[in-house]
Amino acid sequence: MSVHDGLLLIDGIESFTSLVADELENRWATGAGTLDSVCYYSLVPTGKLFRPLLLLDSAQAVGGDAAAVLPAAAGAECGHVASLIHDDIIDQDDVRRGRPSVQSKYGLGEAIVAGDALIFDLFASLAECRRNGVSDRRVVAALEAVAKAGIELCRGQSLEAEFTASRCFDVGTYLQVARLKTASLFRGVCASGAILGGGTPVQIQALGCYGESIGTAFQIHDDLLAYLSESEVTGKPDTSDVQNGRLTLPVILAYESATPEQREQLTEALFTALDPAQGLRRLIAITSETGAVDAATALARSYAEEAKNAVLLLPPSPSRERLAFFADAVIERAY
Amino acid sequence: MSVHDGLLLIDGIESFTSLVADELENRWATGAGTLDSVCYYSLVPTGKLFRPLLLLDSAQAVGGDAAAVLPAAAGAECGHVASLIHDDIIDQDDVRRGRPSVQSKYGLGEAIVAGDALIFDLFASLAECRRNGVSDRRVVAALEAVAKAGIELCRGQSLEAEFTASRCFDVGTYLQVARLKTASLFRGVCASGAILGGGTPVQIQALGCYGESIGTAFQIHDDLLAYLSESEVTGKPDTSDVQNGRLTLPVILAYESATPEQREQLTEALFTALDPAQGLRRLIAITSETGAVDAATALARSYAEEAKNAVLLLPPSPSRERLAFFADAVIERAY
Repeated sequence: MSVHDGLLLIDGIESFTSLVADELENRWATGAGTLDSVCYYSLVPTGKLFRPLLLLDSAQAVGGDAAAVLPAAAGAECGHVASLIHDDIIDQDDVRRGRPSVQSKYGLGEAIVAGDALIFDLFASLAECRRNGVSDRRVVAALEAVAKAGIELCRGQSLEAEFTASRCFDVGTYLQVARLKTASLFRGVCASGAILGGGTPVQIQALGCYGESIGTAFQIHDDLLAYLSESEVTGKPDTSDVQNGRLTLPVILAYESATPEQREQLTEALFTALDPAQGLRRLIAITSETGAVDAATALARSYAEEAKNAVLLLPPSPSRERLAFFADAVIERAY
Repeated sequence: MSVHDGLLLIDGIESFTSLVADELENRWATGAGTLDSVCYYSLVPTGKLFRPLLLLDSAQAVGGDAAAVLPAAAGAECGHVASLIHDDIIDQDDVRRGRPSVQSKYGLGEAIVAGDALIFDLFASLAECRRNGVSDRRVVAALEAVAKAGIELCRGQSLEAEFTASRCFDVGTYLQVARLKTASLFRGVCASGAILGGGTPVQIQALGCYGESIGTAFQIHDDLLAYLSESEVTGKPDTSDVQNGRLTLPVILAYESATPEQREQLTEALFTALDPAQGLRRLIAITSETGAVDAATALARSYAEEAKNAVLLLPPSPSRERLAFFADAVIERAY
């Protein structure tokens, strides 16, 4: 990619980001009551808006009009934030994006209800696309894709809780959780963008696969962050996974190739450590020594490559380039 | 109504109830994991299926095919049960429909996620109607009505929490909460039934008004149950409202017309009673003495009358008769 192409690509991302941020700022800024304030707090200042960007580029990559599907892009963020709010209740995480989490600031009841409201808003946003000229047929097809993705997301959250309770170091189950809990929403976002943008069945299928692959890469990379030695602040406490005994890929791979002594240290750090920070340090050492961090990184990279291959089916366009760029960025901590 | 007509009416209700119950039994009975079991538990054995029945009769009353909109009717129950599950978490109610509530049986995390999944299923159910021959245009219009109803429901839950915390005996706020928290879903259910069934704009509007009125009557009556001297088991502890200090219509109306001494007794029973059962007995006495129970009953009846008037705009049909019947039944504890 030339420097000029690179700048154009970044310009496109920035312009879409700002469009979605404006849309989100307006969505719950009615001052109609506490619920609206809570939803606004959860959405603004916005995160990196990765899912909305994927939806807009998926729509544009198949010849659709990004402005017409903008409500759905904002809706994708609402759906995502809803799952974060409810996750933070379940995991008792008090910090999100460097600020108090919703339940920590407003209490359990408001947090549950705000998450629900944002799920409803996700679906309201699909109907809004009709007003922008998107056909009823496309809206209904997107509705189906998004509702299915939402149910899979819930299945993933439930399965993850079982998986954590099982204390069973199983790569297959980890990947199933990642697919359901994270990748299904990415699939839904990219597929619904392609549907709303008027893509052919083959294009919709390709962007669905792209979404699932980039989503899996994203989740693996997200789980890696805590175990990277140069670990930066991710907006939530890095000890959260240790405190919740979460079985993430680096830990599972480390367990698989660990010595009996390392296994004992690993399970102790993950399940019985009295001091989470100390437990995390121990896990960082073991996941590095066993090569598990490198192996997990390689797996994330292979999913990112799958995502890049999937979009090669689409005609060349700036949006297709950005989608390929995102697949690299997602495993390089840019998103 | 003749005995013969009455029997036909009951037959129709029983046949619709059994259709919806079968549909609900099949929806989450896939054995796919814990989430599916939790959702199934929350839905089966079914409640009275009041909202699905209203949706089916709203569709049929405008000439639609009940079988075609059956998924949406089941979806209406999913949306309703989702709100019950999340409500029971917020109110810490351990009993629902005479059984352990979802969070009491499966824990907080599963209860939050099951509620979310049922909201997603509500929307999946709308898309399913397309497969039964309902047009895309109607599905999108129903999507809009249902998403809007869901957001209002959340606003109502949030406003109710504020209202409870305010300890301010205000009829206007009570009615606003009832409209948002309860009547909006009834409106959404009846309006979406009319939309999916192919009603004219006037018919859709009439059935929306019917839903809002019957929903308000329903909520007032539901709040009355705890204070009726012949109070029966409602499937949840009758002391729940007292324990949560909920400002319901009988209590508010009693406060308005109470003597200073009664007011003191009333606020003490509602806000500081150490023994909820004793507090409830005190409130039953005061709401009866002040005539508040009668006044609240009269208000419920006037909303039920409004509902009956609204459906007079529709052509005569067995479904219209049932809708009128429901408006009476809702304030006579049949639903």
